[in-house]
Amino acid sequence: MIVAEFSWPVRVYYEDTDSGGVVYYANYLKFMERARTEWLRARGVEQDVLAREHGLIFAVRSLQMEYLKPARFNQLLSVSVKVMASGKASLSFEQTVNLITNKGTEGEASGALLCQGQVKIACLDAVTLKPRAMPVHVREEILRDS
Amino acid sequence: MIVAEFSWPVRVYYEDTDSGGVVYYANYLKFMERARTEWLRARGVEQDVLAREHGLIFAVRSLQMEYLKPARFNQLLSVSVKVMASGKASLSFEQTVNLITNKGTEGEASGALLCQGQVKIACLDAVTLKPRAMPVHVREEILRDS
Amino acid sequence: MIVAEFSWPVRVYYEDTDSGGVVYYANYLKFMERARTEWLRARGVEQDVLAREHGLIFAVRSLQMEYLKPARFNQLLSVSVKVMASGKASLSFEQTVNLITNKGTEGEASGALLCQGQVKIACLDAVTLKPRAMPVHVREEILRDS
Amino acid sequence: MIVAEFSWPVRVYYEDTDSGGVVYYANYLKFMERARTEWLRARGVEQDVLAREHGLIFAVRSLQMEYLKPARFNQLLSVSVKVMASGKASLSFEQTVNLITNKGTEGEASGALLCQGQVKIACLDAVTLKPRAMPVHVREEILRDS
Repeated sequence: MIVAEFSWPVRVYYEDTDSGGVVYYANYLKFMERARTEWLRARGVEQDVLAREHGLIFAVRSLQMEYLKPARFNQLLSVSVKVMASGKASLSFEQTVNLITNKGTEGEASGALLCQGQVKIACLDAVTLKPRAMPVHVREEILRDS
Repeated sequence: MIVAEFSWPVRVYYEDTDSGGVVYYANYLKFMERARTEWLRARGVEQDVLAREHGLIFAVRSLQMEYLKPARFNQLLSVSVKVMASGKASLSFEQTVNLITNKGTEGEASGALLCQGQVKIACLDAVTLKPRAMPVHVREEILRDS
Repeated sequence: MIVAEFSWPVRVYYEDTDSGGVVYYANYLKFMERARTEWLRARGVEQDVLAREHGLIFAVRSLQMEYLKPARFNQLLSVSVKVMASGKASLSFEQTVNLITNKGTEGEASGALLCQGQVKIACLDAVTLKPRAMPVHVREEILRDS
Repeated sequence: MIVAEFSWPVRVYYEDTDSGGVVYYANYLKFMERARTEWLRARGVEQDVLAREHGLIFAVRSLQMEYLKPARFNQLLSVSVKVMASGKASLSFEQTVNLITNKGTEGEASGALLCQGQVKIACLDAVTLKPRAMPVHVREEILRDS
């Protein structure tokens, strides 16, 4: 199953960079989570409501990242979200980070793929942190494009 | 001198919160810097260009923060930027963080003022980190609304 | 009331710096909180126990920061903690960040004062987030050096 | 080749947690980098000296993470570093994060394995960001235990 792709813009601020002059490697994980959160929101799933009304949270179980080219301060990036597989209490994503446009004299060409990752998410009970099935309406929303 | 107000939306993601259930206090400084960066961009000033072509960076010299009410996961905030004073190599801002809308059952009312700060910025030589006057066209852009 | 000074070492890692080559301004707030946490621990106050057994958390109410000189990647800093005032549900700290030793050719001299801050903390009910008095044994521990 | 193991203690502060009550997933990457930096330092390799005198920086090329159990506020963790392979301009690490002691009533047992990762590092020219061989004395230091 591969659903239609979604992407979310992320601007690189000073907070995201390090003294090597590029985006710090852990911060791409933040960018990818922002994109997953907005992908859920675009499907009508608000995670604060899910926690409050259903006692459910999403947590990352495993991930793989490949860092190809660096992003730099002030660049505008595009972070994609694609569901690759899903179970009753899990979701697997493929995500990429691309440079939207580079107006500067240094850095990668516009559109360049900067990094990519696979992220496996579990749906957990917010109190026990044990796996629990997503509500049916959430699963249907999440998978409606597939 | 008080110039027209500018504001920038900021969404609260997991990365911004702490285990107290609210936005971590240092992260409001990130939100405020994002808003100042976008305020500069709206005036045509790109900080990567300023660094590359003029060898200039902006750095925070001092700040005061007052934390009134907490922001929570998934809320949408509005961060304002207002120039209160400016010199050849300095800028003083007043900034606020307000809750845009609260659709949940907990947290503050829509529009509530969550925190406010005064931030004093210096314009520095990117290599020596000593104060240096902003280029005239940058000062004019920054102050054109006043 | 001024109690004896406490200090805590903090190493600057890549995560703490930005592409300006120096420690990102919000991160000094993290360093200062680490030092306050260790100061509490040195007095026998563990904040997770305080939350679990007393339903109390500490939160920053206001702060002032002055950034004097930049810290850089790989430097070792010393963060001080001094109580300046205290109430039933509040504590005011004065904190400094100094460079311990600089073995490099750039950056400030060993011992240089890099930044200083005043931080006002409130003791809050962990659920309602309203001010609540600290338990007597905690106040006594905190103030025993004064 | 498998060299002797090294480990580095990491305390969980508020800055590291999120509103799910546990350490935010990207922050384990910070913990692992701190441990790699200290492992290098223990072998006499200071990365700021390497950058200044040799124009070399280390950058993460790829990683895999498995998140097994959550770490919580105020816990003390131990982060291990083990070199699994090395080339002229690359190093592969296996790293784990374990809970040292849990004195609380919630959370995992003392010693529990919380997460593990494989991290591949490249040695890059600090200006061009292209791969460049490590100096011989650095390679020898890094591999002297093998």
